Amino acid sequence: MDTTAVLLIDCPDRKGLVASVASLLYDYGANITHADQHQDHEAGLFFMRVEWALRDFDLGAFKADFASKAAELDMRWQLKLMSDVPRVAIFVSQYLHCLADILHRQQTGDFHCTIPLVIGNHSDAAPLARFHGAEFHCLPVTPETKARAEAEQLRLLSAAGVELVVLARYMQILTPQFIQRYPSRIINVHHSFLPAFIGARPYHAAFQRGVKLIGATSHYVTEALDDGPIIEQDVVRISHRDQVEDLIRKGRDLERSVLSRALMWHLEHRILGYGNKTVIFD
Amino acid sequence: MDTTAVLLIDCPDRKGLVASVASLLYDYGANITHADQHQDHEAGLFFMRVEWALRDFDLGAFKADFASKAAELDMRWQLKLMSDVPRVAIFVSQYLHCLADILHRQQTGDFHCTIPLVIGNHSDAAPLARFHGAEFHCLPVTPETKARAEAEQLRLLSAAGVELVVLARYMQILTPQFIQRYPSRIINVHHSFLPAFIGARPYHAAFQRGVKLIGATSHYVTEALDDGPIIEQDVVRISHRDQVEDLIRKGRDLERSVLSRALMWHLEHRILGYGNKTVIFD
Amino acid sequence: MDTTAVLLIDCPDRKGLVASVASLLYDYGANITHADQHQDHEAGLFFMRVEWALRDFDLGAFKADFASKAAELDMRWQLKLMSDVPRVAIFVSQYLHCLADILHRQQTGDFHCTIPLVIGNHSDAAPLARFHGAEFHCLPVTPETKARAEAEQLRLLSAAGVELVVLARYMQILTPQFIQRYPSRIINVHHSFLPAFIGARPYHAAFQRGVKLIGATSHYVTEALDDGPIIEQDVVRISHRDQVEDLIRKGRDLERSVLSRALMWHLEHRILGYGNKTVIFD
Amino acid sequence: MDTTAVLLIDCPDRKGLVASVASLLYDYGANITHADQHQDHEAGLFFMRVEWALRDFDLGAFKADFASKAAELDMRWQLKLMSDVPRVAIFVSQYLHCLADILHRQQTGDFHCTIPLVIGNHSDAAPLARFHGAEFHCLPVTPETKARAEAEQLRLLSAAGVELVVLARYMQILTPQFIQRYPSRIINVHHSFLPAFIGARPYHAAFQRGVKLIGATSHYVTEALDDGPIIEQDVVRISHRDQVEDLIRKGRDLERSVLSRALMWHLEHRILGYGNKTVIFD
Repeated sequence: MDTTAVLLIDCPDRKGLVASVASLLYDYGANITHADQHQDHEAGLFFMRVEWALRDFDLGAFKADFASKAAELDMRWQLKLMSDVPRVAIFVSQYLHCLADILHRQQTGDFHCTIPLVIGNHSDAAPLARFHGAEFHCLPVTPETKARAEAEQLRLLSAAGVELVVLARYMQILTPQFIQRYPSRIINVHHSFLPAFIGARPYHAAFQRGVKLIGATSHYVTEALDDGPIIEQDVVRISHRDQVEDLIRKGRDLERSVLSRALMWHLEHRILGYGNKTVIFD
Repeated sequence: MDTTAVLLIDCPDRKGLVASVASLLYDYGANITHADQHQDHEAGLFFMRVEWALRDFDLGAFKADFASKAAELDMRWQLKLMSDVPRVAIFVSQYLHCLADILHRQQTGDFHCTIPLVIGNHSDAAPLARFHGAEFHCLPVTPETKARAEAEQLRLLSAAGVELVVLARYMQILTPQFIQRYPSRIINVHHSFLPAFIGARPYHAAFQRGVKLIGATSHYVTEALDDGPIIEQDVVRISHRDQVEDLIRKGRDLERSVLSRALMWHLEHRILGYGNKTVIFD
Repeated sequence: MDTTAVLLIDCPDRKGLVASVASLLYDYGANITHADQHQDHEAGLFFMRVEWALRDFDLGAFKADFASKAAELDMRWQLKLMSDVPRVAIFVSQYLHCLADILHRQQTGDFHCTIPLVIGNHSDAAPLARFHGAEFHCLPVTPETKARAEAEQLRLLSAAGVELVVLARYMQILTPQFIQRYPSRIINVHHSFLPAFIGARPYHAAFQRGVKLIGATSHYVTEALDDGPIIEQDVVRISHRDQVEDLIRKGRDLERSVLSRALMWHLEHRILGYGNKTVIFD
Repeated sequence: MDTTAVLLIDCPDRKGLVASVASLLYDYGANITHADQHQDHEAGLFFMRVEWALRDFDLGAFKADFASKAAELDMRWQLKLMSDVPRVAIFVSQYLHCLADILHRQQTGDFHCTIPLVIGNHSDAAPLARFHGAEFHCLPVTPETKARAEAEQLRLLSAAGVELVVLARYMQILTPQFIQRYPSRIINVHHSFLPAFIGARPYHAAFQRGVKLIGATSHYVTEALDDGPIIEQDVVRISHRDQVEDLIRKGRDLERSVLSRALMWHLEHRILGYGNKTVIFD
């Protein structure tokens, strides 16, 4: 398959935006393979994702032309080349189901990325990470060592050229300083249907409340705990026959699927964040 | 079909409970059509539902025998005859989708009840109620008239011999005095996936938070708002393309289905409440 | 809300189609409220739906201009005005759940249509139809009377100005002659997950096969039984505890929801058929 | 946790079956942790699963007593000790997602088994199998070598003491001779919602038919292709935007989850087959 480019745009809504982008691409002879747009009428915003083949396409000239048009129209935009393969790091603690799922899918070709680095605050993930060819580092975190551990994490991320961090049931809270280094580039999975059961031990809280469905949520990490823009959520039915350990077991399947979908969409440049929400171009 | 009896039991768990109940029923020659039991190992509780045909069955003698055995074993129990058809009242405001669904299902034979009475704080439901043969009363509620309106509601319920009240998107909060008159006999539907988005305007709150699924919850009404034992919940997927009005529209389908399932199970004596939770014998 | 126009296009895929349509609309000052397009790369086809406000828009001039451009680009197209409110007839037999759902939703405002006519081969639906203000005609069908009944049905449809027929669990098979009169304008619901369990008594067949989910399918009617383009499908979980009558009861909820979604989408001009498949612009 | 015993019973329905089993267990002082029963009224059959703690329980004496009672009551029965850990073999071809899921879950403790053996007709699974400590054998199958390959498979299964075979997207059809050696002990996953799309390339067939949901089915293998008793099914929504490769990708998640649930239930002795159907005690 030819390599493609993806243009992600968001801007105040006005007439002629689609015409403007589509016409410019047509002028350059682009062979568009996917295009989707969205208007948030309430917020007065416009969002667009367009993907086209790069063969026989003068990307440099287009980019210059487009930049000036975008400035005119108050567009924020990102131009991504699918020939660039992002480098992703996974943070993990002792539960390995999300990590195992991500590494297997990456091998299967579901994810447009490489995963050179896995960091754990426990050593449990070492064999799995190494089996899949990722470097593994164990950096235990205690209140005393947290600052030092984060400094080392940042050093490893930087050394490995990582641009996206996935918290695959990583049971430590990152500091604002860390988060600010990777804005909209840290994806977490929370083991509840947010905003229900924020914080620790959500399955226990769900069991106590007697809910009939449990959920999981993947989201971008912001400084407010479990409050970042939601990317994906899913639920599964439970009954009175399910004890807490059954919730935990059933929840594992949700966690890995909502996290993997979030990662896949991020890597395919299908997500546009705005305010505390996301547009997912599917 | 023969008429049947249903026995609902809950008690501290101990050895021999199933044997005890099953043997007594066998001694009386019961033809059991359904039986289910549940143990909550953590709470040390036992729950049982058993249904059997009443033809050639000496119910009076059985009941006396069972009562003494139940006392011995610390059982709380209810014996229900399916030949008794409960009388149900529906409370409604201006949204009629839950009411329409309940009335239609009742006509179809899904619900083991009659619905002699519909009460609204607006008059919108009058034609629909009357089309289905229910008496309709409009009792507007304002802070000033609330006490008087509730008194009139109670009088109507009593006059109609109602034993179960269904709040079918009834937009008023009942007073504790009212609720105490119908313990575990008022079923409400809340238009969110509880415990997320308690209180007013949950679809607006869900839209603001940017969730990817919306839900609805049916529950028994207790004095704590939206906090009673959950009977049923369901969710539907939404996307960035859905505006608040789409959430409201999609939510309507959830509301009516979770409310109708709750009502059906209650009427078939499939629900046992304990603490703030429910066992649903399906 | 302003009234809007919807343009539905399908044609061989080529470069510049979006630019072409979007630019022409922009030239006429259209305020686009929704736009979506789809490419079937395998079939080499392009599909587009665009909706815009008609206030201050010169529709006549646009239409003429667009028609010539469309001819150039080999486009098949339909231009629909949302100010036109389609007239829909419902065909029904003895099961009324789909009819009740459609009539209630129509009243609620979910459907962009009027429903002047309900035709049954039994009389069961008469009160419900009349309660909702629709004319009801009972036209029994036997092998001997079928031709005459269809002639009468066609006459009634024509007299009522009906442009869409919905088979709401109508248990008669229409003749090819009838179907040809309403190409892509008859929507049926089949009570199975097609293509499983084509034909009569699908719940009995599903029960015999021991499936763990049952389904329902809404589709356009073509001359091949249960083989027309699928519009919507849904399923619900069943278990060994469910007897055939439980399947039938649970299935009713599926039937009405897949049929109502199909009707809603058709009326909002969100469906484009091609070959034996559909594109649903959501 | 104490080890437990599981008794699985099926027999013609008659009065007193629950009383009979429960009383005998009570006489032996059994501490029952789970019990469930089911009646198929149409077929006149009774099914029961009961699990109890073995501490201070005289299993030998109970078994003798129960056997004579069972003979009296025409019961077929199996008594399983959870201290016995079944040995399972996985057959696989080139798609590894089901295998990876099973091996990971086994490691996590989801499955009550060991997996000493993986057999592939291709060598792709070798590293994954060995990483999880399973022996791997590659036995290519062609029409000419099929008989020899099956003989070797049977030899390996026997040598490894395997009592359950899981076909984890194994793309060869087993001979009747092979299947007869493992009656109700071969579990397969078919990548469609059976009985739709039996046979080869179901995702392509689903794509051609234009379905709106795709499914997967796990079932016991019988001599009729894709026709054995269904254990579990699930579906996922697709749209016109999904090409065949998207169906294949989305289907992978279904395949692994329906296969893993089937395996888990089998290993916990929760499945009773009868005719071509299954009872799943959950």
